[in-house]
Amino acid sequence: MGGGKFILSRKEFHDVADFFEAKKKYYAAIDTRPTGIEQISIHQAHGRVLAEKIIAKIDVPPFARSTKDGFAVVASDTFFADEENPKNILFSGEKIAAGDLPEKEISGGICSEIATGAMVPRGANAIVMIEYAETDGNMVIVYRPATPGENIMHAGSDMMQGETLFHEGQILNARETAVIAAQGFTRVPVFKKPVVGIISTGNEILEPGESLSPGKIYDINSRIISDFCIENAAEPKFLGIVKDDFEKIKEKVLEALLFDMVIISGGTSAGTGDLCYRVLEELGKIIVHGVAIKPGKPVVLGVAKKKPFIILPGFPTSAAVTFDLFVRPLIRMKAGLSPDTEYKIIDSTIATRINSDKGKHELVLVNLVKNEATDICSAYPITKSSGSITTFSFADGFLEIPANIETVSKDSRVAINLFSKNIRIADISFIGSHCVMLEPAVIMLRKSGFTTKIMHVGSTLGLEACRRGEADITGIHLLDEKTEEYNLPFLHKDDKLTLFRGYIREQGIVYRKNTTIEKPDLGHFIHIKKLRLINRNKGSGTRILFDILLEAIAKENDFPIEDLKNNISGYDIEANTHTAVSAAVALGKADWGIAIRTAADNYDLAFVSLRDEHYDFCIPNIKLGKPSVKKFLEILKSNEFHENLLKSDGIKIPEDIGDRIWPKSF
Amino acid sequence: MGGGKFILSRKEFHDVADFFEAKKKYYAAIDTRPTGIEQISIHQAHGRVLAEKIIAKIDVPPFARSTKDGFAVVASDTFFADEENPKNILFSGEKIAAGDLPEKEISGGICSEIATGAMVPRGANAIVMIEYAETDGNMVIVYRPATPGENIMHAGSDMMQGETLFHEGQILNARETAVIAAQGFTRVPVFKKPVVGIISTGNEILEPGESLSPGKIYDINSRIISDFCIENAAEPKFLGIVKDDFEKIKEKVLEALLFDMVIISGGTSAGTGDLCYRVLEELGKIIVHGVAIKPGKPVVLGVAKKKPFIILPGFPTSAAVTFDLFVRPLIRMKAGLSPDTEYKIIDSTIATRINSDKGKHELVLVNLVKNEATDICSAYPITKSSGSITTFSFADGFLEIPANIETVSKDSRVAINLFSKNIRIADISFIGSHCVMLEPAVIMLRKSGFTTKIMHVGSTLGLEACRRGEADITGIHLLDEKTEEYNLPFLHKDDKLTLFRGYIREQGIVYRKNTTIEKPDLGHFIHIKKLRLINRNKGSGTRILFDILLEAIAKENDFPIEDLKNNISGYDIEANTHTAVSAAVALGKADWGIAIRTAADNYDLAFVSLRDEHYDFCIPNIKLGKPSVKKFLEILKSNEFHENLLKSDGIKIPEDIGDRIWPKSF
Repeated sequence: MGGGKFILSRKEFHDVADFFEAKKKYYAAIDTRPTGIEQISIHQAHGRVLAEKIIAKIDVPPFARSTKDGFAVVASDTFFADEENPKNILFSGEKIAAGDLPEKEISGGICSEIATGAMVPRGANAIVMIEYAETDGNMVIVYRPATPGENIMHAGSDMMQGETLFHEGQILNARETAVIAAQGFTRVPVFKKPVVGIISTGNEILEPGESLSPGKIYDINSRIISDFCIENAAEPKFLGIVKDDFEKIKEKVLEALLFDMVIISGGTSAGTGDLCYRVLEELGKIIVHGVAIKPGKPVVLGVAKKKPFIILPGFPTSAAVTFDLFVRPLIRMKAGLSPDTEYKIIDSTIATRINSDKGKHELVLVNLVKNEATDICSAYPITKSSGSITTFSFADGFLEIPANIETVSKDSRVAINLFSKNIRIADISFIGSHCVMLEPAVIMLRKSGFTTKIMHVGSTLGLEACRRGEADITGIHLLDEKTEEYNLPFLHKDDKLTLFRGYIREQGIVYRKNTTIEKPDLGHFIHIKKLRLINRNKGSGTRILFDILLEAIAKENDFPIEDLKNNISGYDIEANTHTAVSAAVALGKADWGIAIRTAADNYDLAFVSLRDEHYDFCIPNIKLGKPSVKKFLEILKSNEFHENLLKSDGIKIPEDIGDRIWPKSF
Repeated sequence: MGGGKFILSRKEFHDVADFFEAKKKYYAAIDTRPTGIEQISIHQAHGRVLAEKIIAKIDVPPFARSTKDGFAVVASDTFFADEENPKNILFSGEKIAAGDLPEKEISGGICSEIATGAMVPRGANAIVMIEYAETDGNMVIVYRPATPGENIMHAGSDMMQGETLFHEGQILNARETAVIAAQGFTRVPVFKKPVVGIISTGNEILEPGESLSPGKIYDINSRIISDFCIENAAEPKFLGIVKDDFEKIKEKVLEALLFDMVIISGGTSAGTGDLCYRVLEELGKIIVHGVAIKPGKPVVLGVAKKKPFIILPGFPTSAAVTFDLFVRPLIRMKAGLSPDTEYKIIDSTIATRINSDKGKHELVLVNLVKNEATDICSAYPITKSSGSITTFSFADGFLEIPANIETVSKDSRVAINLFSKNIRIADISFIGSHCVMLEPAVIMLRKSGFTTKIMHVGSTLGLEACRRGEADITGIHLLDEKTEEYNLPFLHKDDKLTLFRGYIREQGIVYRKNTTIEKPDLGHFIHIKKLRLINRNKGSGTRILFDILLEAIAKENDFPIEDLKNNISGYDIEANTHTAVSAAVALGKADWGIAIRTAADNYDLAFVSLRDEHYDFCIPNIKLGKPSVKKFLEILKSNEFHENLLKSDGIKIPEDIGDRIWPKSF
């Protein structure tokens, strides 16, 4: 029965190739030479790769050129000239402007006027600057001596005809195109961009724009692959999505084989993978089928019609890393670039111990944080599943852990492959509780040129990230049950952290205005079975507040707290942000939740205030000197930010906003 | 008389604005807001700047999704299952593939087969991996327990509808476009690229492709400006070159004013500058006329028809730095980016003391070299004139020395503005004597992913650069007159350098084969007045060899050496490379010169051997560990390189090529 099919298809991956062997074997089996050469206009040349060496065809400058406005003279005529005893030289009457061909020859006792950039007349061997001369009738009075060659740029002194200016493989930027323009070239020989045919397969995959039917998701891989191609000097051609149908896939692949390379990203299920490599088997040859890497094991490397044909796994992060490992070097070689983008690899230390499967070349996605202590980057492994697209979008790159290594200990010095050479480590990372009101701050930071990375993990995890020095800034609103105090009780005296006063937010119950409920208080909401809750993630300040309030109710009615929770429909469904909770309620996916008034207002929801809370900012001491952090603290005290805060009813600004409130003494 | 015109035009620059004031004043006077917003296809979005925040419109995944191939079960049915006591669960008969809408509801005792990525059927709360189950008739035998939620990705666990995904100002790379695609968006709101109208003026300026007439040079500035625009998210529109004619310039400017901004680069002479700002005066308003910067003083910042109108100086390097200081921040703001490209600024130390004019904001072009001692960059000021294009093309960026600073001492820690974010510090810099045969090595290095920078300064200056740690590798061929020995005598025992054996080159006289000369030896050549020499630059090994040979001849005929030299026509005309000498002779610009046989052969010239010489490689000890240097030493010993060397008759390969020949003992 059908179950067997899966088990079978699994078997095919039992003995997969070692990573390094696989790569070597594949590149040996295919043509990795550049796709070809084309002559393009210099106006299009920026960013392209030079395919032949460029030799100077003319001298630059092509003639002896004056570098100043002044008078072309025979230097000896000016010797010993000074303010007291200027030298008089007869003016030839000729004024040589830039671009003119001088008519009169200069000889002892005669000079011509000359403009910057103009051709030095025959006989002249120096230019007296205009500042050091005066004209008087037909005489020029020179107040300073000029040495032979002064203010003259000799022919070929910049570039000499016959010199090699650039070699094959040079990437052309303004510096290079300028030199080529100076030589009068209008066209440049560059390597053709390899054209990559990209196909997505899988019955569950839809193209963005199509209406989303149950069980379907939008295609992500073709987007990642296309943009990775662009970043690596290749031209992507997306041929669309094909359903799981051998003939249809084959047809599409034949179309793609008209280009220089074919990349299929298989669906997520082994079944779809099957079809893709069967097509490859029929049209060409499989060189490597499955590699001992994690993630990315199902990658298939083949060749058809002499062209590379690669099947990438379906999960976005698997597709991204396998692209980086096998495809990127290939398209770079075909584009005339070096296969290794070693400049993309950045030196960092691992922030937490990583365990890796022995015998597998493991690829661990990481989030890079500038570590002010070591002044190099700390790499934080990202644990989310490879099925998650946000895993990829939060990752700056990945760490390769070779098959023979089982654990990478904390603080190991490692090299990280950045996913893109455009990736810039965020100047400031907010990791902690979510607050809608941070958005204006983020925008103000960006306007000052600071990039931000924001991860909503809740107050508790945020505070941990802050202690590890991972977060630059952590917004927290943690209520201490005993003291009824916010945030301060959660800091330990040995914490190397500083707490800055933020603002006051109003927490409450949010529900749709049309909801009929006689007594809108918490005790009431939790007892109405038909009203479904959307809860917040564990460790978030809001969740903690909610659980504290439930505790109270439970005590009051001396009812076991666990039963109470189990009776609340939807208690286990979690959202990570106030916005997400409000949206879920507004859209009827749930009936009520706990969120700040600001979020409720944004979705025009009814709001029952539960309590005001302090939303403060915790910063590792070591980060306090960081320009981006300083800027944030400025913003916190700025009127522009306060005005933004006050746009929302739910926010109050305390006197001491932006002040250091912990540690109390220094 | 005419001379006066220049003096006048100079006067206009007598009191120029302070740099910082000028910038502030100008940006206050013009509209620096983004040019506008456009909706573009996500396929074109890569690299663009997001103009509005993006909010999740759907949950991702949109439904509970299986992350494994296996069986959808009620977790409790599998509790306590193991190899000895597997649990049997009835198979519903349904196989849920990715993209399917499950038909059957799961309840205790029943399960369905499910593929990775497929929708989890109602009732099921865990997926048992295929590896841990077997099918037997209509039963599924489960060998391991599954916990509730295992292998299930809940709806919205990746992104939840309503979440803010990205903020305005975000640059879109694969990471971002993938997330946007996952949301099903097909179009993205991005900031319009500001369109910059670019005009070049000057009677001496030609467009590349035009035939070069005397006194003219090719336009460089429009090329630099255009490519700088591209690098900063603007779209350049080059409107061509205009001669020095008020009406013609005005006409062209009116055309350019249809775009978002106008940049004219004036000719080099003050006269041309005149015309440009007179046009600006007539069409708009001058905000800043001349700034106390060096180079770049004549820059003019104005506005016409509410659009920025900037006149850049004519010299390429002046145009480049003034663009960087005044235009780059402006187009970045208009493109929705932060004005400061602070990530472009790199931390380095100044390698040599710099003196700067007091009262002038001075911009010193520098060449960056990775300093292995400090592990940060050393910045080497480039002294060539700003009229030289190669000055710009060799410069990685520039150092700003504010008006109040007169000297920057050696080893000062400074920030350097890179000319482009694409500039990557060369992995290996060859500074020293020129050799044609280095080209294959350079190409082999690039193929291994190492970029090179080559500066031909001759053996002597190269050796100095090597001592300063500026050069990674210096090729030298220095003959010691007394010992008749090459290179070794020029190293001092306290030098922290290592000399590696290179190859042997044949130096000789090169001349055109059709030259009629009865006795082709040096003594003869130097006495034939009608034969013009092209000499080599002072300090080059070849020049030193030549002068030694002349000394000998002078002694022999006991004739004063200076007179001898003065009698050689062309003795003072210098070229920097063997290629340039050979080219000059081949093209009849000179009649003879001294060069290596390889260069002579390349130009099919007659060659009279003078002597064999050792061309060796000197490397600072501190660079020996550098990967690029190690690679070069490998190449030196590689067959591929040797085969390349042997292609040329003029080269011999010694036994000990690539060996360390100094210091002798360690």
